[in-house]
Amino acid sequence: MSDLILTTYDWVPEMPRGLVRDLRVRWALEEAGLPYRVESTPFRDRGPEHFAAQPFGQVPWLTDGDLTLFESGAILLHLADKSPALMPQDARGRAEVLSWVIAALNSVDLPCQPWSLFRFMGLPGEAPEAKMIDKFLKARLDRMDAVLVDREWLVAGRFTVADLLMADVMRQVDRFDGLSGHAACRDFLARATARPAFEKAHRDQMAHFAAADVA
Amino acid sequence: MSDLILTTYDWVPEMPRGLVRDLRVRWALEEAGLPYRVESTPFRDRGPEHFAAQPFGQVPWLTDGDLTLFESGAILLHLADKSPALMPQDARGRAEVLSWVIAALNSVDLPCQPWSLFRFMGLPGEAPEAKMIDKFLKARLDRMDAVLVDREWLVAGRFTVADLLMADVMRQVDRFDGLSGHAACRDFLARATARPAFEKAHRDQMAHFAAADVA
Repeated sequence: MSDLILTTYDWVPEMPRGLVRDLRVRWALEEAGLPYRVESTPFRDRGPEHFAAQPFGQVPWLTDGDLTLFESGAILLHLADKSPALMPQDARGRAEVLSWVIAALNSVDLPCQPWSLFRFMGLPGEAPEAKMIDKFLKARLDRMDAVLVDREWLVAGRFTVADLLMADVMRQVDRFDGLSGHAACRDFLARATARPAFEKAHRDQMAHFAAADVA
Repeated sequence: MSDLILTTYDWVPEMPRGLVRDLRVRWALEEAGLPYRVESTPFRDRGPEHFAAQPFGQVPWLTDGDLTLFESGAILLHLADKSPALMPQDARGRAEVLSWVIAALNSVDLPCQPWSLFRFMGLPGEAPEAKMIDKFLKARLDRMDAVLVDREWLVAGRFTVADLLMADVMRQVDRFDGLSGHAACRDFLARATARPAFEKAHRDQMAHFAAADVA
């Protein structure tokens, strides 16, 4: 039996399927070839056990023997320490992966999440606040386009967990066609999501939630 | 001469002083008692060397011998590996610090930054987008209040880099009185910023930018 247990919701509505954050952890586990199993926690009724494992009442969390980690970004960095498939093991490669992982989680995700949330909720987008977020997102994507225009992957000329996370952050914007003005970002996302490990992770998440519809 | 070099802007306008992200790195370096020196990069004229070190044209970055790290969160995790003053060295303590560092950078900072940005820019706050961010921030602070109401520090009963970062993320909201409904968060922030290492870091940042006014 595997020591790695990934916990996600038992079910979610149609709209977020394919974007729930267990996907990026499944993807990393598949890239690394680490054995794991998936467990479920109720989406509708989040009790004290849920908040004890994940203080914001969200998913995923990962149990690794007697350790529990929450926040998908933390889980990815923890897994990267276990597998050279996710991160080069030399000091420079590690420092660059760490920098880009945090860039994806903070500098890039900061405009991506509100931008996507506004669209997800069908807001009009004419308010000055909405325009400020549009501008913030464009500034970040302009810089990412400049970085990605002449490199295939972010660090060390090879795929790492930094690419995995940056791609998954960009997916939420791409869903609402937010990468249309940024060709290098779009091409990068297409390269990342063409990987068999992404395809398996996506298929498995969709099947997990579909199984709950039937049950 | 120190191997650790922290680079920040040579000058910034009055308003962001005390909140520029080199502060959290100075704070960590002071807590850890690691020797370092501070260098400056132009605020007004950001050239290719700046973008080579920090792809978004921001600050800070840290040079550690022949390594360069950007993103303050990445720098803090890198420093935590060097110093037990910043992170317990056992596996459980490390996993919990990592989880809470990412929680601060992503789950908590995600609503804090747009909420603060809107106020920084003097936006009216009546748009549905503004109200959605208000609600998002409240949800996160409600959870942080529940966590902090019965613990002094986030991990292992002692101050760690997770507290340092969570406090610095909350400072931007506190500046606009955004913690007034969350007593446990406010008390936590007061405890964290009463530490001599914070006070020195804050004083040093203010003096750094004030020196540029005179120059």
